[in-house]
Amino acid sequence: MALIVQKYGGSSVANGELIKSVARRVAEAKDEGNQVVVVVSAMGDTTDELIKLAHQVTEQPKERELDVLLSTGETISSTLLAMALESLGYKAVSLTGAQAGIQTDSSHSQARILRVDPKRIINELEKGNIVIVAGFQGVTPDMDITTLGRGGSDTTAVALAASLSAEICQIYTDVEGVYTADPHLVPEASKLEEIGYEEMLELASYGAKVIHPRAVELGKLYNMPILVASSFSNSMGTVICKEASMELRNKVRGVAHDTNVAKVTVIGVPDRPGIAMAIFEPLTKANISVDTIVQNASIENITDLTFTVARNDLIKAMSLVEPAAQSVGAKRCVTNAKLAKVSIVGTGMQNMPGYAALMFRTLYEKGINIQLITTSEIRITCIISEDRVKDAVQALHKSFELEDVA
Amino acid sequence: MALIVQKYGGSSVANGELIKSVARRVAEAKDEGNQVVVVVSAMGDTTDELIKLAHQVTEQPKERELDVLLSTGETISSTLLAMALESLGYKAVSLTGAQAGIQTDSSHSQARILRVDPKRIINELEKGNIVIVAGFQGVTPDMDITTLGRGGSDTTAVALAASLSAEICQIYTDVEGVYTADPHLVPEASKLEEIGYEEMLELASYGAKVIHPRAVELGKLYNMPILVASSFSNSMGTVICKEASMELRNKVRGVAHDTNVAKVTVIGVPDRPGIAMAIFEPLTKANISVDTIVQNASIENITDLTFTVARNDLIKAMSLVEPAAQSVGAKRCVTNAKLAKVSIVGTGMQNMPGYAALMFRTLYEKGINIQLITTSEIRITCIISEDRVKDAVQALHKSFELEDVA
Repeated sequence: MALIVQKYGGSSVANGELIKSVARRVAEAKDEGNQVVVVVSAMGDTTDELIKLAHQVTEQPKERELDVLLSTGETISSTLLAMALESLGYKAVSLTGAQAGIQTDSSHSQARILRVDPKRIINELEKGNIVIVAGFQGVTPDMDITTLGRGGSDTTAVALAASLSAEICQIYTDVEGVYTADPHLVPEASKLEEIGYEEMLELASYGAKVIHPRAVELGKLYNMPILVASSFSNSMGTVICKEASMELRNKVRGVAHDTNVAKVTVIGVPDRPGIAMAIFEPLTKANISVDTIVQNASIENITDLTFTVARNDLIKAMSLVEPAAQSVGAKRCVTNAKLAKVSIVGTGMQNMPGYAALMFRTLYEKGINIQLITTSEIRITCIISEDRVKDAVQALHKSFELEDVA
Repeated sequence: MALIVQKYGGSSVANGELIKSVARRVAEAKDEGNQVVVVVSAMGDTTDELIKLAHQVTEQPKERELDVLLSTGETISSTLLAMALESLGYKAVSLTGAQAGIQTDSSHSQARILRVDPKRIINELEKGNIVIVAGFQGVTPDMDITTLGRGGSDTTAVALAASLSAEICQIYTDVEGVYTADPHLVPEASKLEEIGYEEMLELASYGAKVIHPRAVELGKLYNMPILVASSFSNSMGTVICKEASMELRNKVRGVAHDTNVAKVTVIGVPDRPGIAMAIFEPLTKANISVDTIVQNASIENITDLTFTVARNDLIKAMSLVEPAAQSVGAKRCVTNAKLAKVSIVGTGMQNMPGYAALMFRTLYEKGINIQLITTSEIRITCIISEDRVKDAVQALHKSFELEDVA
């Protein structure tokens, strides 16, 4: 008898009908002879509505209280799914994060899982129950409720799968799996049957919004296979696992893009120690992630410093960068909020030359200007104008022959 | 430094503005130098909405799951009140029933409090926190969430007050206190400064919807004074305590009424053992409370059996009573759903004659027919036609000179 962990996202449990339909899927897995643990997110927009409620009483909700408030969203959907299963004639029991043994540190709103004590879950499974766990939440050693921050429910699912030595962790969401490119941009994009953890991490961080990178990292750490598939269809999804099959290794696996990019250039910066620190430290303190950073070669000890931030961080970032730039004697700052990243990803790239050259040539032939370049061992990213993203992704998908790789 | 427990009902925390206003009242109690523990109900209609949600996935929600679902309502309002207090500059912390140490049996949807372990509350009070406890909920020894059923939050408040040896338990609601009669019916009704536990129990059970009898019973058991007052005004409320002042003891204290009354008469019942059991056992099993029961004197071993149920239980009750009546050979059943109770209540009655006579005379002089009579040591109740309730209550209020007793 296999133990599987399933996770259903907020759009999959957004109303009563959808919850009943999820219950039927869960029941199928049980009928196939599995022990089943299910992790659920909050229904649809519940989390946003709870945040709105908090803002009705205070502008700055205290994080400890906000965590307790938000945790009710997942608790609600977990009980509803358990009820729906019971009404189908299956034994089911819902557990809060605390009851499920999800023990975290006390960093409210972005808690990290310290350990999972699955005693209660195992006990309920042995009684023949399907166990429904409220995702996104945990409990501190002092029994205070925490939430796990972004990607929380995915992380709950993979952590539970690892601690229960599950056969697989199945993440059901509103996409069909991982594609060679966004099917909205590239109609001939193909769904991948398998993808490696590393590749998925690069894709996930670079715009393929299928599963949170944090959950993939955890899967990689415990070598837990993760299926990503649609809760709205029965088509095969994509399995994220140790490494893609041998034959697929020497290939680009996908083209990712991300339009949430803004560029800041600080012009005329004196080229001396401490400048980068002066510019970036205020951003770090304000919790603004800086992505690509490029510093031009210095001419007469004056240089330009360019970096990118998420577009919705730009205004806040500039309010910090401009005074910092002035204080170090820079000439001025310019910004461009209409940029995007396109990336090619694949473990094959680390051993094979020529990928970067083909990428640059493809963009050149389409007349697309590359503003910045950044790479990892298994990824090459070009920052280009937002209005050329579709052209770029389509051309790259074709150049790297991704139509039939799945 | 006194420790006080305050409880705010659902209508007092129905939206963000009201929660902020409750926060200011709580802050005042803290400013007066008290340690303050606050128990909150779910906001406005939240509980009904959660029940509706459950019915979207199943007709018969499992009680264990329904309890977890409903408990989120009080958890939400507890966090919002804590946030509102923090934004006023007060240290506050919300606790779930489980965190607050409310330990119950495992009768889901109507759990009884077994004990309160106030360790965590005391700890938070000592840190200078105002402690906000989610009402209506507890936790079993197996760490399963329960709800306390009707009057749950009142009961939470009195139980906490008792276990913390609070100076007083203050129940804030949408009424000003306990009146000699319903001010909607009797404009000259006066608010009582004090009322005894026993008297309040009779009033609460007989229609004065101010505080749940269960909480009054608990208050009586631990001799905990309970203030009932409005959260929307600053007027003095009514204190429920051991006994009303000496001078007030030989008096009728109030006139209660309840229009949620239906009468069932089983006609032509053979007068032999086992009949009452046959009729009432199915009702008990269906959890239908039977109130007044009257059996006529038997004529030729045939009698009539009359009893009352809550009006909204009538249809269900009849579906059980009719077959039972047939099976014992009764002639037929008749019902009357348009009835009401009027009661006079006062500890003085147990030592003084003449109250019943005055009550019956008053109703007679108004031409009001008495259908059934039921009494306790400190209460006399007459069941009359619903359309005469206002006349009856006004006349009784006058006859017993209740205009200025407060």
